[in-house]
Amino acid sequence: MAGASAYYVNSLEENNFKPNFDEVPEDIWKNCQLLILCSPSNPTGYCLEREDYIDLLNKADKYDFLVCSDECYTDIYESSKTPPTGLLECCDVSQPDSKAVVFHSLSKRSNLAGLRSGFISANESVIKDLLLYRTYHGVTLSLPTQMASKWAWEDTVHVEKNQKDYDKKYEVAISALKDLPEITRPNGGFYIWLNVHGDDQIFARQLYEKNNVIVLPGSYLAFQENNINPGKGYVRIAIVHETKIIEEALTAINDNFSAL
Amino acid sequence: MAGASAYYVNSLEENNFKPNFDEVPEDIWKNCQLLILCSPSNPTGYCLEREDYIDLLNKADKYDFLVCSDECYTDIYESSKTPPTGLLECCDVSQPDSKAVVFHSLSKRSNLAGLRSGFISANESVIKDLLLYRTYHGVTLSLPTQMASKWAWEDTVHVEKNQKDYDKKYEVAISALKDLPEITRPNGGFYIWLNVHGDDQIFARQLYEKNNVIVLPGSYLAFQENNINPGKGYVRIAIVHETKIIEEALTAINDNFSAL
Repeated sequence: MAGASAYYVNSLEENNFKPNFDEVPEDIWKNCQLLILCSPSNPTGYCLEREDYIDLLNKADKYDFLVCSDECYTDIYESSKTPPTGLLECCDVSQPDSKAVVFHSLSKRSNLAGLRSGFISANESVIKDLLLYRTYHGVTLSLPTQMASKWAWEDTVHVEKNQKDYDKKYEVAISALKDLPEITRPNGGFYIWLNVHGDDQIFARQLYEKNNVIVLPGSYLAFQENNINPGKGYVRIAIVHETKIIEEALTAINDNFSAL
Repeated sequence: MAGASAYYVNSLEENNFKPNFDEVPEDIWKNCQLLILCSPSNPTGYCLEREDYIDLLNKADKYDFLVCSDECYTDIYESSKTPPTGLLECCDVSQPDSKAVVFHSLSKRSNLAGLRSGFISANESVIKDLLLYRTYHGVTLSLPTQMASKWAWEDTVHVEKNQKDYDKKYEVAISALKDLPEITRPNGGFYIWLNVHGDDQIFARQLYEKNNVIVLPGSYLAFQENNINPGKGYVRIAIVHETKIIEEALTAINDNFSAL
């Protein structure tokens, strides 16, 4: 898009799903204009740490690119734990030479994906460019959406309730995957990224045919980079429904998995 | 914007506010990429006719540009009259070589300006380009907005009531302008484009200072082209409030006008 080409950084199980930035060649860093991060990650739930952000910001200074951090899953984490670190905690975005651009959304925080409402935090010059960009398409949020968004950003009660609900959902999900005792809740997000030790498309299709349960084949979620499709052999399971449905669906997944 | 430069076509009272396309030089037509029309016009209320559209479409074929017709005021006309002609009535937009691009909105039809909801009608190749353009900014209407829009486009009862309300508003407005018997309702839209026979900024400021009534100085609504600012000496009066407020405001305008 816009003449740019994408270089994908693999996130592999052997690295605990941490994106492997060390594998990125020097000439890619030199030509980089935007580095797009998603932490907590969709689909693995991996969360970048403070040192990771600082390393990347140093690279951004050295090679002159922007670090765009999509943190829309940041409110979905185990309520007894500390929240995932965000890029805004690792730098001063108000500085004119700040390379940080942080994206937030109500979609996961408030279960308001359909509202299409969020915000971007960055220094003045980046926001100025964004303002020009928005001038080109001229779309503002409708007034009802703005009012609903104001309420949702100001209220924390529903966010905490949401977190507690996810604690319960994961508890039910992991307990239903009884033959897969190694499954644990990721640090962020609302997925289980399941290694099916086989063909993810076939697994997903059979699960749908036999049990009417839909999961997303991991190979659809990734591109091949360095001869690896890091999504191949995995399925993404969204832990977002009512607990009764989660229990049924995850029991079906457990049974299909055991039958492989 | 996007490296283009604008050429403004004047709409003058001496031409009954019809845009004077004859004044456009040949080299402007040759370099034209987009012709932007607004009919019914904001602020004059002038409505293009079938022959105007056909002339312009012929020019578009000859010089290879798109005719973009913003028809958001098209539902606001005197209820006893026939509706203003739209560009879609003058060509077959489904034809692959169609140069017509028609914009509609709920903002005036349903008094839903804040909803930011409308549609564009054009042939497949134009829509395909628009789809690419929208992919760049990725903004969809929120689901509540989509549902409200569906209702508003399907319902005609509120549109007819709206029309009848405007009949009443114009009746009150014109009757309050009792010292200006030449004022008539324009063919479309909800404005009176008043020639103040003097300085429009001074007129607007004095009206606000003396009577708390706000009108828009016409010179703010136009650019100078061919040494003429066609908005200079006019004010735009929006006939959109409750009839009682319209009566008070237009009586004040009448009195200020008479005092000039």
